[in-house]
Amino acid sequence: MTYCVGLKLNSGLVFMSDTRTNAGVDNVSKFRKMFTWVTEGERVVTLMTAGNLATTQAVASILDERTKAPADRNPSILEVPSMFQVAQLVGETLRDVIASNEGEGQAADAFNASIIVGGQIQESEPRLFLIYPEGNFIEASSDTPFFQIGETKYGRPILVRAYAPDLSFEDAVKLLMLSFDSTLKANLSVGLPFDLQVYEAGSLKIGREKRIEAGDPYFQQISSGWGEALKEAFDSLPSFEF
Amino acid sequence: MTYCVGLKLNSGLVFMSDTRTNAGVDNVSKFRKMFTWVTEGERVVTLMTAGNLATTQAVASILDERTKAPADRNPSILEVPSMFQVAQLVGETLRDVIASNEGEGQAADAFNASIIVGGQIQESEPRLFLIYPEGNFIEASSDTPFFQIGETKYGRPILVRAYAPDLSFEDAVKLLMLSFDSTLKANLSVGLPFDLQVYEAGSLKIGREKRIEAGDPYFQQISSGWGEALKEAFDSLPSFEF
Repeated sequence: MTYCVGLKLNSGLVFMSDTRTNAGVDNVSKFRKMFTWVTEGERVVTLMTAGNLATTQAVASILDERTKAPADRNPSILEVPSMFQVAQLVGETLRDVIASNEGEGQAADAFNASIIVGGQIQESEPRLFLIYPEGNFIEASSDTPFFQIGETKYGRPILVRAYAPDLSFEDAVKLLMLSFDSTLKANLSVGLPFDLQVYEAGSLKIGREKRIEAGDPYFQQISSGWGEALKEAFDSLPSFEF
Repeated sequence: MTYCVGLKLNSGLVFMSDTRTNAGVDNVSKFRKMFTWVTEGERVVTLMTAGNLATTQAVASILDERTKAPADRNPSILEVPSMFQVAQLVGETLRDVIASNEGEGQAADAFNASIIVGGQIQESEPRLFLIYPEGNFIEASSDTPFFQIGETKYGRPILVRAYAPDLSFEDAVKLLMLSFDSTLKANLSVGLPFDLQVYEAGSLKIGREKRIEAGDPYFQQISSGWGEALKEAFDSLPSFEF
């Protein structure tokens, strides 16, 4: 499995992904699931993937190759004029990759994948999309300002409760750490290190990035501190009376 | 779907179940999923079910009918001498009901169900079991002191963090309310009212019971208070620094 979250804030976008992939519990590997394309001053596009690793790596590679072969008749993620068209391009690529595998007669679901893609192009607003295996997609809005893919359930309650559009980047990262920590504690298929990237609206350059390793002191502080803080929160509520 | 939790505490057992069943989002009904058999002073057995409603109702009815037909050659849940044999009996009944439906050539998984059963018989300790559709089962221990069935993921992080074997019944109910609230907020297939039952170790009679209705003031207080308490807990942790 996998866990990735993309948050849309007033001040920009925040992306976080884990790096664990597994085919059975004894076939565990570490792969980056976050990919970024940048033309500084013009566009930044970040993509995170969940699902079949062969599918998601193929999608990322195809998208990347096109940016390096400008003569190719297909559009490149660095050339299309809007984030909407970026989402279309990623969706079509994803659908094509899945379809090409299904043609071999394998079970349709086995090659599925989902993608979160977000970024900004020139003067338009930063946008965030969730792309389905069928190639269609939805966009984050003020009603649904974040997307999760992969093992989404354990980390959802804290996101639902503590997300606010005016969170600072620092607090948004704290929130994501808590969401990832809840998932990590419950599911072996999500694992450290995590990749973190922040995109500041209007900057049109890659924002702050960090790989959060297993021994990261801030993550450990948050993880152990959250146990205490939750305990206090729990105690602060009145007990049930029969 | 469904959400049921059985907790094993030093002082006894606590059971909580929702009442929503659905086949599609426009075919929603309310059914009790908690069943209890008692011979006061001798045994108390409580059972909670998740999965195919026809299967779980059949299991509960068959178990119940046997307690009323003492001449039946099959053992009754009120007669077997230990909680282990109660779990065996429930497991066999569950497997038989599922198998009888599978005989009609339907997809095997469609009739599946899981069951939590717990209670106490005479001088032996209270015991808590999780029964699988195959009829086999596992028992709660100090390492795994609670079982969830149904839509288990959203409500799991708070259980993992705040459970302690020495919780009072009052605090255990508070914990379950929080776990159910997290699930309710994320999943339409889990719904109020909830059924709550507490069994005090050694009492050998039905403990305190309550149906928590949609407007229950304590549940509303917990649900809204938890949002605030979580916010404070969140604020109490240090922000990330880039």
